[in-house]
Amino acid sequence: MLDVYDIIAKKRDGLTLCAEEIESFVNAFVRGEVPEYQMSAFLMAVYFSGMRDTETHALANAMAHSGDMLDLSELGELTVDKHSTGGVGDKTTLIVAPICRAAGLTVAKMSGRGLGHTGGTIDKLESIPGFKTNLSRSEFYDCVRKNGIVVAGQSANLAPADKKMYALRDATATVESIPLIAASIMSKKLAAGARSIVLDVKTGSGALMKSNVDARALAHQMVDIAHRANRRCMALVTDMSRPLGNHVGNSLEVLETISVLQGADADGDLAKLCVQLAGAMIHLAKGIPMEEALGVATDALESGKAYEAFRLLVASQGGDLHYVDDPEQLEVGGATHRILADRAGFVEDVNTESIGRVARVLGAGRIIPNAAIDYGAGIVFHKKSGDYVQKGDLIAVLYAKDEEHLSLGIKQSRDLFTVGDVCPPAPPLIHDCITADDLYDWD
Amino acid sequence: MLDVYDIIAKKRDGLTLCAEEIESFVNAFVRGEVPEYQMSAFLMAVYFSGMRDTETHALANAMAHSGDMLDLSELGELTVDKHSTGGVGDKTTLIVAPICRAAGLTVAKMSGRGLGHTGGTIDKLESIPGFKTNLSRSEFYDCVRKNGIVVAGQSANLAPADKKMYALRDATATVESIPLIAASIMSKKLAAGARSIVLDVKTGSGALMKSNVDARALAHQMVDIAHRANRRCMALVTDMSRPLGNHVGNSLEVLETISVLQGADADGDLAKLCVQLAGAMIHLAKGIPMEEALGVATDALESGKAYEAFRLLVASQGGDLHYVDDPEQLEVGGATHRILADRAGFVEDVNTESIGRVARVLGAGRIIPNAAIDYGAGIVFHKKSGDYVQKGDLIAVLYAKDEEHLSLGIKQSRDLFTVGDVCPPAPPLIHDCITADDLYDWD
Repeated sequence: MLDVYDIIAKKRDGLTLCAEEIESFVNAFVRGEVPEYQMSAFLMAVYFSGMRDTETHALANAMAHSGDMLDLSELGELTVDKHSTGGVGDKTTLIVAPICRAAGLTVAKMSGRGLGHTGGTIDKLESIPGFKTNLSRSEFYDCVRKNGIVVAGQSANLAPADKKMYALRDATATVESIPLIAASIMSKKLAAGARSIVLDVKTGSGALMKSNVDARALAHQMVDIAHRANRRCMALVTDMSRPLGNHVGNSLEVLETISVLQGADADGDLAKLCVQLAGAMIHLAKGIPMEEALGVATDALESGKAYEAFRLLVASQGGDLHYVDDPEQLEVGGATHRILADRAGFVEDVNTESIGRVARVLGAGRIIPNAAIDYGAGIVFHKKSGDYVQKGDLIAVLYAKDEEHLSLGIKQSRDLFTVGDVCPPAPPLIHDCITADDLYDWD
Repeated sequence: MLDVYDIIAKKRDGLTLCAEEIESFVNAFVRGEVPEYQMSAFLMAVYFSGMRDTETHALANAMAHSGDMLDLSELGELTVDKHSTGGVGDKTTLIVAPICRAAGLTVAKMSGRGLGHTGGTIDKLESIPGFKTNLSRSEFYDCVRKNGIVVAGQSANLAPADKKMYALRDATATVESIPLIAASIMSKKLAAGARSIVLDVKTGSGALMKSNVDARALAHQMVDIAHRANRRCMALVTDMSRPLGNHVGNSLEVLETISVLQGADADGDLAKLCVQLAGAMIHLAKGIPMEEALGVATDALESGKAYEAFRLLVASQGGDLHYVDDPEQLEVGGATHRILADRAGFVEDVNTESIGRVARVLGAGRIIPNAAIDYGAGIVFHKKSGDYVQKGDLIAVLYAKDEEHLSLGIKQSRDLFTVGDVCPPAPPLIHDCITADDLYDWD
């Protein structure tokens, strides 16, 4: 007999709930037997009291099992997935998935749309004319069976408990809870079925987790959940104090993706991070040492095999390959504004969330889930933080579909791109790496 | 524009809400514009973050104004009210109200019913055949205008916000929050309109507040709310580590009430506490020194004037005076069980909440609000904690309407009345007294 009051009171008092309690509670909530006011009180109690690793795992597991659990076992042991906690200019999935495919892994991935200041992989892919992300279950399986790679939107019945709970959290100021974030993300990863999962936990001014400590804690909880659920998993805590790469916005990021896949800017932050993430996935899936896996990833990128895998991905999901082969045809906002250096000096660090906000205001993002966006809107950086400029040098270009959106973006970008006398120290690309081996000295 | 998310987030983060925010929030909730899941998340945030005195006052005030605000101004400056946080054997209102009336004060009081292990004044009064507590507003005013005393059940539209919020708290483990308890109680006291309010905050094993520290904090918050709302108020923190008086149960408590009003057991804990509470009310209302007010209260009791005021109260609300004049006619449970000392020694202290639970199981109380009860069920103590007994002496008698209820009570009272070698130290009757003057050194 489920005693919801007792579950809330225990969590309020910092006691530990057992897996059966959490499972019954989540299931009853999804069935509509637990009213929302009890769930929201529970979520606020979790916000304050936290959760033990056993509880977070039980929560993620119960949420995963509230809907379809994808069975990828017929695809073998090399199924991989990745998740990024979201950032500005983060187009890594578009590059990492093809590298992994080129390295012989099976990429069966479900991604999300952008929200707030962060972008989403599904929006970026849909900026390629014809690309279909809304796949039926059989289309999803067909794609991955045939090509070894698929990137689709989340199916409606993936972790429905998470959808219901997230909607409540969003209305009750309980989003910012590390165990709730960990369980939410991992419920979808567990349901999505891949054997190996690499997590890219962003940290810094453009990330959900602003501090390294929080990002590390989140990474740790997610790796722990995966480990308890018998998945291979590691997490990289990566920098989001600066936008990733030089393009922000959907078509613009596809442009940059293709350019990196064609071998450009191999020493840039974007290519480097993609090799690290793909290397981690290859390492986990194949069980080869990380050094060797990084070599495989680098080779897949440099040899052009990853580019071919990207073309395969686009073609198999109905995307028009003309836009891949001649990316300049991709639609980019016709209204543009050039931001020039007003003096000589070093481009200073800016608040990356503000950059994401400018991109959103230009039309590249949304505040309301699933609202329409402008694929061609965004920002291209010609100089980034730490670069030396002369007065009048081009720092960035804003793109929007019309003057109205452009002027909104210009207004929000005032004082965003500043030039000073001191070169800001470059942050490390990767702050931390958390593997299952790290779990033991943590408890 | 009310931003509910922002209000929840501020409280979650320990920030201070202004009166306008709290008022708009409570009003929108009562109108059904704020969903219950947001209110319950807010209540849990208050549980953890607490409230400043200004916030608790604003909350009590908003809840009071959510319904009828009784205007007792036509009755003059001497209107008094009291509130007890509830206990076992607490029949003080039945004695204190007549003392105050006899001392020339105007008692226009609304009381509640018993719930859980605690009794309620309305149930006790209704155990007198004919006594009507469900008065219309005009009946209520008529009674107090004519007789200067009325004790009725709470009108339906008294602080409806409190009713709605209490129902949520009861389902979401947010009852045990001192600011929420203080605001809940004081919203009803402010709405009930009396100029002077004495609060009897119980502490100990039979009370809602088990510790003196919590009881004192609650007392302080309530006096502060009253003070900010321009009411005269003081709080006594009184002992509930032992039942008050010797009778527990509705008819049984009326029996004891009449006996005290007739001058019996003037040195007992019950009579002493009633004089203290009535003295505090006289002190506040008349503005005379406490010493002098205690003299007035003692005189009202000893002279029999309080007994006459009790007869007036009963008669004016339709109660049958035969039962007051010959209280042995009051119906008392026919099934009885005598508990005898199994050895010589001192009666030991017991958990008073357990005694309340035995009385409830015998039929004297309820778990579900407004459920029917047995007026004649209860317990009479012939010896209390600290008394010396010989083997075979009568300690207590249990009363129930039938053997079935009696056996349930007997089962729960096993090991409740024990005799040991050491005389347990007697607790003080009054632990603390908090007045408006104490508010300044608290902040």
